[in-house]
Amino acid sequence: MAYKPAIPKGTRDFSPEVLHRRNLIFDTIREVYERYGYMPIETPSMELLETLTGKYGDEGDKLLFRILNSGNYLEDIDDQLLLNKKINQITPRIAEKGLRYDLTVPFARYVVQHRNEITFPFKRYQIQPVWRADRPQKGRYREFYQCDADVIGSDSLLNEFELVQIIDRVFSQLNIKVNIRLNNRKILMGIAEAAGMSHAFFAFTIALDKMDKAGIPSVMKELTVMGMKREVAGHLEEIFRFAGSDEEKLSRIGAYLSGSVTGMKGIEEMRELLALLQATGTTHPVIADITLARGLNYYTGTIFEVTAKDTVMGSLCGGGRYDDLTGIFGLPGVSGVGISFGADRIYDVMKELKLFPLTDQQTTRVLFINFGGEDTLYSLKALAKIRSQKIRAEIYPDTAKIKKQMAYADARNIPFVILAGESERSQGKYTLKTMESGEQQIFSLEEIMHLIR
Amino acid sequence: MAYKPAIPKGTRDFSPEVLHRRNLIFDTIREVYERYGYMPIETPSMELLETLTGKYGDEGDKLLFRILNSGNYLEDIDDQLLLNKKINQITPRIAEKGLRYDLTVPFARYVVQHRNEITFPFKRYQIQPVWRADRPQKGRYREFYQCDADVIGSDSLLNEFELVQIIDRVFSQLNIKVNIRLNNRKILMGIAEAAGMSHAFFAFTIALDKMDKAGIPSVMKELTVMGMKREVAGHLEEIFRFAGSDEEKLSRIGAYLSGSVTGMKGIEEMRELLALLQATGTTHPVIADITLARGLNYYTGTIFEVTAKDTVMGSLCGGGRYDDLTGIFGLPGVSGVGISFGADRIYDVMKELKLFPLTDQQTTRVLFINFGGEDTLYSLKALAKIRSQKIRAEIYPDTAKIKKQMAYADARNIPFVILAGESERSQGKYTLKTMESGEQQIFSLEEIMHLIR
Repeated sequence: MAYKPAIPKGTRDFSPEVLHRRNLIFDTIREVYERYGYMPIETPSMELLETLTGKYGDEGDKLLFRILNSGNYLEDIDDQLLLNKKINQITPRIAEKGLRYDLTVPFARYVVQHRNEITFPFKRYQIQPVWRADRPQKGRYREFYQCDADVIGSDSLLNEFELVQIIDRVFSQLNIKVNIRLNNRKILMGIAEAAGMSHAFFAFTIALDKMDKAGIPSVMKELTVMGMKREVAGHLEEIFRFAGSDEEKLSRIGAYLSGSVTGMKGIEEMRELLALLQATGTTHPVIADITLARGLNYYTGTIFEVTAKDTVMGSLCGGGRYDDLTGIFGLPGVSGVGISFGADRIYDVMKELKLFPLTDQQTTRVLFINFGGEDTLYSLKALAKIRSQKIRAEIYPDTAKIKKQMAYADARNIPFVILAGESERSQGKYTLKTMESGEQQIFSLEEIMHLIR
Repeated sequence: MAYKPAIPKGTRDFSPEVLHRRNLIFDTIREVYERYGYMPIETPSMELLETLTGKYGDEGDKLLFRILNSGNYLEDIDDQLLLNKKINQITPRIAEKGLRYDLTVPFARYVVQHRNEITFPFKRYQIQPVWRADRPQKGRYREFYQCDADVIGSDSLLNEFELVQIIDRVFSQLNIKVNIRLNNRKILMGIAEAAGMSHAFFAFTIALDKMDKAGIPSVMKELTVMGMKREVAGHLEEIFRFAGSDEEKLSRIGAYLSGSVTGMKGIEEMRELLALLQATGTTHPVIADITLARGLNYYTGTIFEVTAKDTVMGSLCGGGRYDDLTGIFGLPGVSGVGISFGADRIYDVMKELKLFPLTDQQTTRVLFINFGGEDTLYSLKALAKIRSQKIRAEIYPDTAKIKKQMAYADARNIPFVILAGESERSQGKYTLKTMESGEQQIFSLEEIMHLIR
């Protein structure tokens, strides 16, 4: 067969070395989430398409992976529809399930479906893959993991405060230097109100969202094209450019939107959150950034965004407060706030900045050379004792040449090798070879367990 | 919206309580695999359908979940084909990807695709979900996890020996009493040879596989219908019914198939494996069972099957040796052996036999009651210290009535609650309430950390 094995584009195989590093990231996030009282849930990879469609905009709907119904899926489809290839009408009838596009919508569905079993406030985290039929490119995959934490059923700012602490802790433990930027959608609503742009609030936030990449002048130009008065834009630009302490920035913007009840509420929330964070302190700088917008239209309060300090890599973590996520599934008026870590980008940053530990801590610690016969049995007994101490250990399965067995230890980055032939056996001892130095010495099993631990 | 949220049939949401228990099973299996030198890999959820189809028989092909291509997938499909609703010809053209059906075929594909990066013998484990469009029923799901370990590129029986040890260890740690049954496909081939059934070996193993449920007479009847001579069947039945020690059974069957080179090789392998296991000992009984067949046609040597002793629940773990798994992907002659734990069945057994720990060890240890204002700040400082010791802790986010906050601790099974109001604050102390006994007492923070750990 001239068949060459391959995987679908935009997907990846993970080798043990890469997976160990990825797991370091997942385990860190998981441990910190749990330390803050967040509990895991898992939802199915497939959701009914009626749950998914219409939640991510038209663009998102196109990016859903749809699963073909079983059996003769065309049986009940009208001939004329088929001949006209009316995909939009045919697709919903031949595919009733789709792959999860994010963890937020399934979580909202979960909360509504299980609302009678859940104790609120409900603090859940979820680390699972999602799928998007995006055009694959560097750093963008069709299957990737999201690591979300949300608390739902509480509007206390203590939740925002703790989520910033979680962000601060995770990046400290991973040794990545970051800036944590905060804003509040209510401030943006206030600005839109003051600038006469309330009617186009969502477009306004989309324009602001480009500030980082396009720069202030380009964004201001887009806003005037959208109908913002030139004078108002000039005033706004001044505010956006203002460089001062967080409190100075908030005072300045407060003066501008003092007529907006929503805007002033946003400033009050920002002040309260910043005061809490100041009182307890953070490792990474927390910056009030009134130009931060975030593209998602369901945010209604605090929003977060985290970027690496030492490299350019987009957002490593983001999130915000929403007031009505479960409304679409029939449970209105439940406020929540959440964050999501982008594990793939975090991996890329850590790789680029060489932040992963040099030695693989998760690999086998010691390999027994297999000499065959009685020597093998002698090694197997020691191997059982070492493993009973929960030390990762193996014996080369075949009685191959020593050189080949050593090459295996080398390729696998196994730090210690044990050789036990007739001479060691007669003394009841074992020769331990340290792979890095090449040194080898004879020891008792107890000494070896002490040394390799 | 009169919409009632639901998930696709045969799929499941996992609540924190259930997930904690499931993770106990996964973590146990993972830890034991790693202790024996197996390393994790992950493959994409989607594979190209050319990788999947034809590997699981016609029945399996029907159970594959297929993913609809993006864009106008009907564009290039011939009108006549559409009108005739020739699903078999249309499907491969509108769906080029499918969801993983098991972990074995993707592993074989992985080994062939990455053969130049892999160090052989390659010991990998993989714990990931698989999907089958099976009719959902009790204990059978459309999305479920498999927990596989395989070693490929070594034909040493030490691999079989260690896989039995892994099985023995996993079930010991989970506290499930099991029988580990072994057979060797070469013995079955020898029997088929001796009984003149070599031409129908696969059908012969399928018939044997029903022995447990259908009983010996029914299987023998099926074999005679398949063309086995009545006299031969009578002789075979005698052998199958023979109750003796493993060695007696092997001697008896050895006499029967002494003319078959393959059969005698199988007996030799069984003897060697049993001798190794006897020399080191196992916690659970290991039984040579020459009626064990296992339904999969790629097994060529040792086969394993594990059943619970204290309840009826089918196979909890199974596996075997194969000689040419990667041949279908263009890499012939690579021998391997592997096992797979059925996490869902293990979960069901543990639930039925009440083997899960009574208290949830993975939940929050302590909840701070939120009194608001200065009291909250005072609690937040203590909370930060407790969390810095990696103890899972939270504060109720809202300043709700104490009764409500206590009810939250209760519902979440949080064992300790800390109350710190003005009186505690003035003493620099904290009141600790033990939820189970209802006792409460005032302590320093250091004392509390010692008590709740």
